[in-house]
Amino acid sequence: MDNFTFYNPTRIVFGKDKTANIGKVTAPWGQRVMLLYGQGSVKKTGILDTVKQSLEQSGITVFECGGVQPNPVLSFAQQAIEAFRADKLDAIVAVGGGSVIDTAKTIAAGVPYDGNVWDFFSGKAKVESAVPVTVVLTLPAAASEMNSGGVITNEQTQQKFNIMGDPLYPKASILDPVNTFSAPLHHSLYGVVDAMVHLLEGYFNTTSHNTALQDRYAEGIIRTLMESASVIKTEPDNYEARSNIMWGATLAFNGLAPCGLGATGFPMHMIEHSLSAIYDVSHGAGLAMILPGWMRYRLLNSPERFARFAHTVFDIQPTADPVADAKQGIVALEKWLGSMDIPANLQQGGIPVAEIPQIAQNAVMLAQKWGLKEYTTDVITEVLQYSAGE
Amino acid sequence: MDNFTFYNPTRIVFGKDKTANIGKVTAPWGQRVMLLYGQGSVKKTGILDTVKQSLEQSGITVFECGGVQPNPVLSFAQQAIEAFRADKLDAIVAVGGGSVIDTAKTIAAGVPYDGNVWDFFSGKAKVESAVPVTVVLTLPAAASEMNSGGVITNEQTQQKFNIMGDPLYPKASILDPVNTFSAPLHHSLYGVVDAMVHLLEGYFNTTSHNTALQDRYAEGIIRTLMESASVIKTEPDNYEARSNIMWGATLAFNGLAPCGLGATGFPMHMIEHSLSAIYDVSHGAGLAMILPGWMRYRLLNSPERFARFAHTVFDIQPTADPVADAKQGIVALEKWLGSMDIPANLQQGGIPVAEIPQIAQNAVMLAQKWGLKEYTTDVITEVLQYSAGE
Repeated sequence: MDNFTFYNPTRIVFGKDKTANIGKVTAPWGQRVMLLYGQGSVKKTGILDTVKQSLEQSGITVFECGGVQPNPVLSFAQQAIEAFRADKLDAIVAVGGGSVIDTAKTIAAGVPYDGNVWDFFSGKAKVESAVPVTVVLTLPAAASEMNSGGVITNEQTQQKFNIMGDPLYPKASILDPVNTFSAPLHHSLYGVVDAMVHLLEGYFNTTSHNTALQDRYAEGIIRTLMESASVIKTEPDNYEARSNIMWGATLAFNGLAPCGLGATGFPMHMIEHSLSAIYDVSHGAGLAMILPGWMRYRLLNSPERFARFAHTVFDIQPTADPVADAKQGIVALEKWLGSMDIPANLQQGGIPVAEIPQIAQNAVMLAQKWGLKEYTTDVITEVLQYSAGE
Repeated sequence: MDNFTFYNPTRIVFGKDKTANIGKVTAPWGQRVMLLYGQGSVKKTGILDTVKQSLEQSGITVFECGGVQPNPVLSFAQQAIEAFRADKLDAIVAVGGGSVIDTAKTIAAGVPYDGNVWDFFSGKAKVESAVPVTVVLTLPAAASEMNSGGVITNEQTQQKFNIMGDPLYPKASILDPVNTFSAPLHHSLYGVVDAMVHLLEGYFNTTSHNTALQDRYAEGIIRTLMESASVIKTEPDNYEARSNIMWGATLAFNGLAPCGLGATGFPMHMIEHSLSAIYDVSHGAGLAMILPGWMRYRLLNSPERFARFAHTVFDIQPTADPVADAKQGIVALEKWLGSMDIPANLQQGGIPVAEIPQIAQNAVMLAQKWGLKEYTTDVITEVLQYSAGE
């Protein structure tokens, strides 16, 4: 096990009808709050009304700020920082998925900072303080509700970078599985893939000796996520399956999974960022297009590890040939993705295979920024060819 | 999945040679600290010197307070509270296992409190504030290094009660597996049993529907703990096995495992408290004497659950008869305990079976305090008879 540090002070309030607790968990942090949300689906579902009512019952004055878009942009956050200051607010309540929460974190870091909030993303400055953020989660995927990270796109520079820092942990996050019933099904399933890949980046890229605890942690969550996804495919209102997905996605990326795995890297996320920067694909769908191909590319690097995944997650019977077992596991994964109507390669996702060179060109810049030295243009091209589809 | 809240702000610093970081993680909390430890083994091993040196290098003035005993007592904590106040200290650094950390928490809660610190244990008062505690862990078992609980015995009233509260989470805990190499082997193995039973109390006593995530979490940690215990039995200095035990025991009782399981209760701990109150047995050894018998008592209540344990933890081949499978699992557990030289029943532990009535009489008081209504004197007697041994 490699050395690690772990710290995560976010308070989780999980369960049915817990949305109405947002006032109570927010009140200790401020009396004038920015209520941040996305494109308005939370208005239709009534979640926003429940939130506002709860905040007001706790004596909190609410300043609405809607309109965060799916791939959230810097300019929106910058305007919100100005509004937050002008209205002399105390805290932010984020109602939504990763995009809304990541935007909340960006605003939270920007408010007490003199310079341009982009400095935190470009690496020019470190987040030393932030205004408090509380969360009502509506789409499990990114685990932003229980981690200190966030991703924003700078439209001017066309860079999709991330921010991080202890002050950015949400103070409290409300996870009510019922709030996820109404999400479009394909988005819920893409969220599951995102959570799975968060775990698999660590699982397949660790160089640590003896990862028994970490492997079993990841395998248990992945199996549960897949089982639960298969349930909501036909029963979107299944509370137990939605619960497992909601808590499973949080556990997948709240910092526990990589404890002891060493520096693992995020090569699949890196390549996906490039896909979604160029084409209009959801993050989870993009990851699904890359995952099986990347596994085929990477397989020979540690066949036992990929075979183990096949045995423990897909119940493939172990044989004397780990490479063959591993390949069976990848086929089983592709089959499962197919059964969920999730694209398992570029062709299935409608990405023109002829444009692989441009995608690789775009991705290699991020590989350099993220310190993924192995991922040269040639290597990324190879991964993308494995991911092309027949 | 049942509703739950989760909150755990303890910072974990894990790994080889991390003991020397105690100064750095303690400095933000105070400049004059009480250095609390047990019977002096940390002096012999040199851990205490490393800690003192690190604290002093961070400009911290150290006030030593050694002598915490294995079943820590109230009077010691009360004296330490007076000393803490008299010396105008800021924080406590606990170097040891559960006994030392639990004593540190008792002192921490008592210092800012006007009344008798026992009020927190008896339920007369709630912990609203506490002085900061940091930890260097030397014996993994109780997970007190990453939870908000503690157990103390009031010698006057002969009550072994517990304290709890958010202010009692250690601010930071250093987990260096090397610090556990020198612990007596049987204590290390008892610690493993303690951690396993922490998980099994939730695993077997849940009434929640769909506990897929929680079951796999527990099963993964239990398997890893057992594998690692088998390794240190012959290689006490095996770093990887010690690492798995150290982090596994923390994960077993840091509040994550019961998330979603509902109100589960601690019947095995309840009966064990009575054992160790009357006889001179280690907590983990006492739990091991109770565990298989309690499982036999409880089996028919949810045979599928006990069968699942047999399948997933002991690789028992599933048959059509869950009760038979479950019993095979219990036999496998007893066999494993035997192979670790851990007593698997009262006879093996040297407890006079003729005294079962007295033990039950003693235990039933705690059953009432803990709200375990099912556990009448008759039921506890029945469990103890199952635990008697041939």
